[in-house]
Amino acid sequence: MVATTEKSIHVLKEGHVTSPNGFSAGGVHCGIRRSKLDFGWIHSNTPATAAGVYTLNAFQAAPLKVTKESIEKEKLIQTVVVNSGVANAVTGKQGYADALEMQKLAAEKMGVDVDHVAVSSTGLIGVPLPMEKIHTGIQSMENPDCYSAENFEKAILTTDTVTKHMAVQVEIDGKTITVGGAAKGSGMIQPNMATMLSFITTDAAVEHDSLQQALKDVTNKSFNMITVDGDCSTNDTVLVLANGQQNNEILNKSHPQWPLFLEAFQLVSEGLAKLIARDGEGATKLIEVNVKGASTEVAARQVAKAVISSNLVKTAVYGADPNWGRIVCAVGYSEQPIDPDKVSVSLGDIDVVEDGLPLDFDEIEGKQYLENETVQLVINLKDGPYEATAWGCDLTYDYVKINASYRT
Amino acid sequence: MVATTEKSIHVLKEGHVTSPNGFSAGGVHCGIRRSKLDFGWIHSNTPATAAGVYTLNAFQAAPLKVTKESIEKEKLIQTVVVNSGVANAVTGKQGYADALEMQKLAAEKMGVDVDHVAVSSTGLIGVPLPMEKIHTGIQSMENPDCYSAENFEKAILTTDTVTKHMAVQVEIDGKTITVGGAAKGSGMIQPNMATMLSFITTDAAVEHDSLQQALKDVTNKSFNMITVDGDCSTNDTVLVLANGQQNNEILNKSHPQWPLFLEAFQLVSEGLAKLIARDGEGATKLIEVNVKGASTEVAARQVAKAVISSNLVKTAVYGADPNWGRIVCAVGYSEQPIDPDKVSVSLGDIDVVEDGLPLDFDEIEGKQYLENETVQLVINLKDGPYEATAWGCDLTYDYVKINASYRT
Repeated sequence: MVATTEKSIHVLKEGHVTSPNGFSAGGVHCGIRRSKLDFGWIHSNTPATAAGVYTLNAFQAAPLKVTKESIEKEKLIQTVVVNSGVANAVTGKQGYADALEMQKLAAEKMGVDVDHVAVSSTGLIGVPLPMEKIHTGIQSMENPDCYSAENFEKAILTTDTVTKHMAVQVEIDGKTITVGGAAKGSGMIQPNMATMLSFITTDAAVEHDSLQQALKDVTNKSFNMITVDGDCSTNDTVLVLANGQQNNEILNKSHPQWPLFLEAFQLVSEGLAKLIARDGEGATKLIEVNVKGASTEVAARQVAKAVISSNLVKTAVYGADPNWGRIVCAVGYSEQPIDPDKVSVSLGDIDVVEDGLPLDFDEIEGKQYLENETVQLVINLKDGPYEATAWGCDLTYDYVKINASYRT
Repeated sequence: MVATTEKSIHVLKEGHVTSPNGFSAGGVHCGIRRSKLDFGWIHSNTPATAAGVYTLNAFQAAPLKVTKESIEKEKLIQTVVVNSGVANAVTGKQGYADALEMQKLAAEKMGVDVDHVAVSSTGLIGVPLPMEKIHTGIQSMENPDCYSAENFEKAILTTDTVTKHMAVQVEIDGKTITVGGAAKGSGMIQPNMATMLSFITTDAAVEHDSLQQALKDVTNKSFNMITVDGDCSTNDTVLVLANGQQNNEILNKSHPQWPLFLEAFQLVSEGLAKLIARDGEGATKLIEVNVKGASTEVAARQVAKAVISSNLVKTAVYGADPNWGRIVCAVGYSEQPIDPDKVSVSLGDIDVVEDGLPLDFDEIEGKQYLENETVQLVINLKDGPYEATAWGCDLTYDYVKINASYRT
């Protein structure tokens, strides 16, 4: 959660992945998808310190392997190329060779070191990367008309209905540091990353190990706390690039203003994560689950995830049915140490359960609250000091519609 | 899975919970639900050796505690009383007192020892048990007109659309032993038990500890392998009563024909579990996931559960979309040791993935296969000798409809 120093962080009105200095981005239709943009890129004027986190799915897609291996070499990325429509997952040796080829072609086109190129794909599993079309996309990287953050943000989408972007600014050591980001994700969204891609940029100079640790910590409190449908994809990736264009003293964990940088990073990640949850396939509402009073951090997170992942809770919110029994039930099966006689539940400000017993509340008021576009479910376990927040969306007819006919 | 000796087991054409000798059952409308039957009972002529397994949900409902405590005393149950409409869960001390009262009233009415009565409830969470109506229900236990297995099987239903019952016969020591059962469950169905009640009866004499262990083993391969929506309820219970009316030599683990009895028990449990999965809320199809070649039993079970629980797999089956990528994806996030390069997947007899790579298959044929009412997804991990089967259903518009308006 973003803490009290938030005031010192300025959220840009129109923030993008290109808001930090020295980043450009673009996108085109290269022909993988029927008519929508399907190939995009981010480019930094100079190689940027880079860190990544990747899906834990055993069928990790080829581009993730290529990107991971490249970052491991020099911890630097200058160009990121992304296609949508085809995930290049479950494609074997050919898929790996194709991802390498995509990387090499982009490096040649942009005149950067091949290991400074990250590649990323999202879309159908098990379909070979159409290399001719990828080639067409890469050709467009020399065309100034294709450059815009919006083009990039559109090019990475699949079943998403809106682009997802954000940027914030903070003062560090007298320099204005900007953190920006763009993300995609709508289905196959689940804690531990899912068909979710997120690219975060900053013009701060940041030491690599601190950046990698920060990415892990921030991801655990943002992207790993969202769920749309409980399915964890083969391609999830969050990349962060820090190009140091503001010439600040290199930031690391020991820097006195590190917490402020972390907060800016968290704010962008959390913002993008919530945009993904709100744009969940078929969703009409954003659901936020706050768990308080847990005996451990794991318990707080697991209880929040159990509730946000419950199909019964999600359908109850869709139908604006204040059926708190389903919330309590999900708390109970979270497999965490819970004292049922201490648990309290509120729908926003409406208390519905206290110390494990139902309260008399106004059902109409409860129903009205659940008709809001953002719904908060608060669970207090009264068993310790730990808290966690998870985000998700309601489960609707349209979720079924979208997923019963994704390909056909 | 039921093995090759199945031939020696005779499945009764019209099998019920009362098919074994010495069991009667009944049900009435006592007024908890609007018009449907909502109070039922099973009665054995003599106290039966009893064993139970219960939900792992931390909010275990009051009747489960009462039943568990009673069985622990003498390991005997003669009468089971069940109401639907109200779960008597999250009802605190009053709920526990109400469950005890329901037990006491039933014992008095039937003239049996109070500790020989099991109580069970299913329905809304957090609503007090309407004791006057329960009393009305118990009064009906003296009315011969209310007795029939069908009445009982109807009285325990909630969102179920059909009753679920089955019975089989085997010869053991020259005696005909019958195992029968009735179950309910449609939503909140998930491995580890969910709003699922199942009552299994047999006229065999069975030693208690062997019966308890058998129940646990059989449940793990039947009721704990079904999922409708991943929600594990507060009330799940499987009870087995063995009244010994066939005067067989008491069966235990050392009896040479114990495996045959186990098989009959498994067959009834698996049959009821599949009936529950097929009647999942809004379901149009039964999905069976067979996992073969796993390196451990846990891996086999977890992979099967990951696939059967995937909303994306469930919607793909609903839409008859042979999108095997979603199956592979779920295998990948099952958090089990898997070698992606060995995994094969078939839709029924249609091979779609071999050694981690897509096969060229006829998409139309795949689509046609998925239009069957029973769909089999076969996953071979080629990594060991272990197998597991899980059952579930497709995710449809009607699931959302039912659950967005359960109470209102």
